[in-house]
Amino acid sequence: MNLMGRQVQVRSYPQGPVRREHFEVVDVPIDPVGPGEVLVRNTWTSVDPGLRLRLREAAPEGYFVAFPLHAAMDGIMTIGEVVESRAEGFKVGDVVWHALGWRDYAVVDASAVQLSGLGTLRTLDISIAEPQWYLGALGGMGLTAYAGLWVVGALKGGETVWVSAAAGAVGSLAVQIAKLHGNRVVASAGSEDKVRWLLDDLQVDAAFSYRSAEVRTGLKAAAPEGIDVYFDCVGGDHLEAALDGMRRGGRVAICGSISEYESEPAGPRNLFLAVAKDLTIRGFRGSSNLDLLDTMQTELGTALADGRLRQRETVFDGLTSAPDALIEVIAGRTTGKTLVHITDAR
Amino acid sequence: MNLMGRQVQVRSYPQGPVRREHFEVVDVPIDPVGPGEVLVRNTWTSVDPGLRLRLREAAPEGYFVAFPLHAAMDGIMTIGEVVESRAEGFKVGDVVWHALGWRDYAVVDASAVQLSGLGTLRTLDISIAEPQWYLGALGGMGLTAYAGLWVVGALKGGETVWVSAAAGAVGSLAVQIAKLHGNRVVASAGSEDKVRWLLDDLQVDAAFSYRSAEVRTGLKAAAPEGIDVYFDCVGGDHLEAALDGMRRGGRVAICGSISEYESEPAGPRNLFLAVAKDLTIRGFRGSSNLDLLDTMQTELGTALADGRLRQRETVFDGLTSAPDALIEVIAGRTTGKTLVHITDAR
Repeated sequence: MNLMGRQVQVRSYPQGPVRREHFEVVDVPIDPVGPGEVLVRNTWTSVDPGLRLRLREAAPEGYFVAFPLHAAMDGIMTIGEVVESRAEGFKVGDVVWHALGWRDYAVVDASAVQLSGLGTLRTLDISIAEPQWYLGALGGMGLTAYAGLWVVGALKGGETVWVSAAAGAVGSLAVQIAKLHGNRVVASAGSEDKVRWLLDDLQVDAAFSYRSAEVRTGLKAAAPEGIDVYFDCVGGDHLEAALDGMRRGGRVAICGSISEYESEPAGPRNLFLAVAKDLTIRGFRGSSNLDLLDTMQTELGTALADGRLRQRETVFDGLTSAPDALIEVIAGRTTGKTLVHITDAR
Repeated sequence: MNLMGRQVQVRSYPQGPVRREHFEVVDVPIDPVGPGEVLVRNTWTSVDPGLRLRLREAAPEGYFVAFPLHAAMDGIMTIGEVVESRAEGFKVGDVVWHALGWRDYAVVDASAVQLSGLGTLRTLDISIAEPQWYLGALGGMGLTAYAGLWVVGALKGGETVWVSAAAGAVGSLAVQIAKLHGNRVVASAGSEDKVRWLLDDLQVDAAFSYRSAEVRTGLKAAAPEGIDVYFDCVGGDHLEAALDGMRRGGRVAICGSISEYESEPAGPRNLFLAVAKDLTIRGFRGSSNLDLLDTMQTELGTALADGRLRQRETVFDGLTSAPDALIEVIAGRTTGKTLVHITDAR
């Protein structure tokens, strides 16, 4: 079998903003399928802000590993269809997820633990969901949103929860999950269009654009009585505004710091407020909360089916568009879950 | 009754280092004792780094209130003896604590809630402890040390715990409590003398001076396998070193940030490690954990009595020395609990 595939590789690490030229699309021979392996034709691959942290010599310690130069980008959630199987429990035609994305064909070791377990090869039930939903609400995005609210106890309801980057893949789920659990939800995003979508379609209680006013000002107007929980995807001035706006005993769940991925990060200068107001700040990765996956999928799957949960996708067509998709995500020009639809597999 | 007393007042707010000239000692008439009040002749008053945060126009939101200029400094823990009582439950000769310190005589409303409850008038059992111990191990210092370890789950034992400013009032208790609960304890302090005391007398497992080497380097040598818990009294470079050194799932308890009280604070630039390593950072005030007070006093009282817990005091003599005591505390030149012994009451 002389199958040839294509993959996106990192050509050089960006200093500052990521650009198209930092990547290249390379033709590669696909290895023969060994025992315990399956060959997957990928159909959808994920594009997430956190990938930016891996476009460097060394990713932050404890985070997912950096992408090597001139090699496959391993560790990106992906959906595909099994086209050949030598692994027990997987058969041709199965729709699966795994973590060998940004390429059209992948040979996957069915027993290999990928992305802290989240990305380990798994068959998906596509009778209840579109395949790509497993990269969104029913996958890592849903798990991150759900876990973030869970680790700071915001699923008990009755509190005021602020979610930043609320029109993003994780944020747009977090606001809705927080609402479904009976919280008052404040959302912020980067444009008035997104704010309208959050208010009209996702039914948040208040929303503001951080590009229209200072974050502190926007938050104060949206939550004059203060907030109990902040779901942080942004860092920087957003996190500082949250610490200012927190009530005593408030909690922060940090899943990312997108405002700082392309610059030198600066910590929150008002961290002492954590002492003054007995605040808790928890960083977390969705994939560290795999024990919540089944609960999350059941709950969000039901909510999707009966229309209480909405998801929106920004889809880029064709594998070669993956770098553009990442650039757009980091620039904040996408809404909901950003995906590459691999329509151009050979 | 024409009793005259003396009190320390703030004359002006320091910009930068606090100096003697920011205070003055003023003669004041003592009000007559009203119904529900007691007159206390103070004998010991507390000197804590956190007082520095109140020497400004406005203290951090949610923290204890700022000291007004040219008025009594309310809200500082103090020990004294009741010399007149019109309050039920208090009689002449009782040794009490309350929060009207930095003066020789205080008229205390027995029912007034002071310092979030901690400083509310209370009779002390001096058959089991020296009176001033209630400003140290058996008072706010013990409570802060105990609560800090409690809020991050470090009382379960079996972990590696780093305590900074470990020769200070809170730190020296935190290291010992952490040891008593079966943890491996790493301590840091500002001089080789303090390091020797920590190793020889307090029996910590490893210790280093941040003045002899970079904090990161010292921590790495003392805890090459990383730390599970960091008890933070210092902030700044110490907190950054802790985030670097944390194992997955590690926890930080912040009780103070003494390195930043006289300068513009900068947050930890490596806060993203909280996401990468699933870290929890909790700020807290001892006085927010009053429910632990009885447990703490019983446990530490027993440990003091049988010699398993040691405390050291740096005592300044006479009310007028209180500002000097504060200056020395902030400069890191005191060891253990810093106290003013009010031997000069009229």
